[in-house]
Amino acid sequence: MTEEQLSSNHPPLPPTTEEDRFSWLRLLRSRKVGPATFRRLLREHGSAQNALAALPEMARAAGITGYETCPPGVIEAELRAAKAAKARLLCLGSAEFPATLAELNEAPPLLWAIGDLSLLQKPAIAMVGARNCSSLGARMARGLATELGSKGHVIVSGLARGIDTAAHMAALETGTVAVMAGGVDVIYPAENTELAHDIASSGLRISEQPMGVTPQARHFPRRNRIISGLAQAVVVVEAAAKSGSLITARDALDQGREVLAVPGHPFDARAAGCNLLIRDGATLVRSAEDVIEALPQQDDLFSRPTEPPSEPIARPARNLHEQIIARLGPSPIAEDQLLRDIAASAGELGPALIDLELDGRIQRQPGGLLSLAS
Amino acid sequence: MTEEQLSSNHPPLPPTTEEDRFSWLRLLRSRKVGPATFRRLLREHGSAQNALAALPEMARAAGITGYETCPPGVIEAELRAAKAAKARLLCLGSAEFPATLAELNEAPPLLWAIGDLSLLQKPAIAMVGARNCSSLGARMARGLATELGSKGHVIVSGLARGIDTAAHMAALETGTVAVMAGGVDVIYPAENTELAHDIASSGLRISEQPMGVTPQARHFPRRNRIISGLAQAVVVVEAAAKSGSLITARDALDQGREVLAVPGHPFDARAAGCNLLIRDGATLVRSAEDVIEALPQQDDLFSRPTEPPSEPIARPARNLHEQIIARLGPSPIAEDQLLRDIAASAGELGPALIDLELDGRIQRQPGGLLSLAS
Repeated sequence: MTEEQLSSNHPPLPPTTEEDRFSWLRLLRSRKVGPATFRRLLREHGSAQNALAALPEMARAAGITGYETCPPGVIEAELRAAKAAKARLLCLGSAEFPATLAELNEAPPLLWAIGDLSLLQKPAIAMVGARNCSSLGARMARGLATELGSKGHVIVSGLARGIDTAAHMAALETGTVAVMAGGVDVIYPAENTELAHDIASSGLRISEQPMGVTPQARHFPRRNRIISGLAQAVVVVEAAAKSGSLITARDALDQGREVLAVPGHPFDARAAGCNLLIRDGATLVRSAEDVIEALPQQDDLFSRPTEPPSEPIARPARNLHEQIIARLGPSPIAEDQLLRDIAASAGELGPALIDLELDGRIQRQPGGLLSLAS
Repeated sequence: MTEEQLSSNHPPLPPTTEEDRFSWLRLLRSRKVGPATFRRLLREHGSAQNALAALPEMARAAGITGYETCPPGVIEAELRAAKAAKARLLCLGSAEFPATLAELNEAPPLLWAIGDLSLLQKPAIAMVGARNCSSLGARMARGLATELGSKGHVIVSGLARGIDTAAHMAALETGTVAVMAGGVDVIYPAENTELAHDIASSGLRISEQPMGVTPQARHFPRRNRIISGLAQAVVVVEAAAKSGSLITARDALDQGREVLAVPGHPFDARAAGCNLLIRDGATLVRSAEDVIEALPQQDDLFSRPTEPPSEPIARPARNLHEQIIARLGPSPIAEDQLLRDIAASAGELGPALIDLELDGRIQRQPGGLLSLAS
């Protein structure tokens, strides 16, 4: 690998051997390694194997004691579980990795997938909405999914109750992708077990989580960013104010996705989120035609080369990181002092400092003092 | 009156004597004299009296035979009816004429008014919508009118069934203006007789039509433009596709008014018009707060001087007028030829030609030939 390739911002070259794939998985499953650090380590060390070898010393230099990379046995177990579930590993940078997702800074380096991988090569529309939707909302979701499916669009959703379920079911024949919050082999909610099996048969289930992981609250926001990341547009079918679907919609805007919403009467609380989105600029959806009209021209989306992702750090964290960097200089200051200077709790500051240390941007000095990396 | 005043584009000076007012009314009630021609005649002839004296000869020169101005007896009867109904005449250019309406090119030169004239000096919001509204729509109209009224906004509407009725009733205590399609003394629909009397007592009824005129279909579009012309913003509460409320909304946009609409579920046909408006850029309304937020700053609206209206011809007509002017030159051509050249029916062309003749922009030559005025 030449120096030029090492310093470029392009996605990593995907693994080519079983051993490479094993190392990718092991690096990503190691403590303190998120998608951003994963890419940076790969870029700096040339391969996952090299990065794994360097990690313990980097952690030690950053003041983290007893750091260990993920044990190989854990990865072996994950690969066995994947084989049993007929799951395939999709690696960022490979041809089968979904292109729209790969463009994003926060793209997961690896995805487990069960089902028809070809669906990831087709234009997709995400449909999200309330779990406790009204029958009107479910009917709208079914109608939109059926019509959009018949026009060649894959329907992406989250296998949740309500709108998700209605959208997946209506799109089973034409193509649907369920993004799981936990492991790709862990079906949640249980009442959707049959639907999940149907999707594995004729559609596709994917997840960035390790096999066997039970979904927890913290998994859902990441999962939702994959849903919108896979799609050209996100349609919010029915959503109350302050609902998770609204967060998905805002994230989708950050990702440069079209956001659309189905309106409802102001007296209907289940329309409050959608009406808010429309008020704030989302496109009003009355029918599948409205959705299709709002899509970016397919030529634009599928003909352009994958753009080089810039430094991949999630947005809220980036603000904190930038605050820290702005406060630090070559002269060391105490962590307490830093904490008083910036708008963050100790609980927020700790992980951010570790990120920055692992990224080589700040240095820990003796006595708990911090400075910019020289 | 100086030459400068004559040639300016400002609204005419309002009449100061009873005789003047009589002449204004008589000029406006004369055949072929609409608001645009009225202003032009007043500007060119210095007074309504002079214009009345010049009209028959102008008509004759334009090839209209047997033209007569409105007989004085008709005006005397109108004034008697107005006195009986306690109606007052508001003249364009006077202090009591509503300022927002006066700004418009198509402002009616005269309005009959029954009730509290001071309401015309307050900021107003128009509320329009379906006659066959749902109970949800009526409830929304009541809620909005009550809340906006309590915040000091006069509610303007058209005394129709449905949304209009709900809005007027809710705003009776705080101030409401009903713009009548026929004469200000002709209550339509009959079921709103009591409401109309209540509005005359505590609110205001106005009309540009002569006293005693029974409303006809052609009166409604003009009436609707006065409704939106009186208001800073037009709120469409519930409206089907292709409804009159949509036309009012589009006209309001032409007048530079804020247009807002209350959304509904796409499966509800009575929301189709509102959803269409929102899709096309109208502000989505969930509550009175949304309406108030969308209003232009009151300072802007009430502190700026009345802008000089440009040549006052209504928009669709203007296009036709411009087409005619563009086709004509100093050399006369046959009317048949003109008809073939432009996109208009003979029924549309006739009135447009008369307008242009009365405006002195084109001339009729012997043998039915037409040319630009030299």
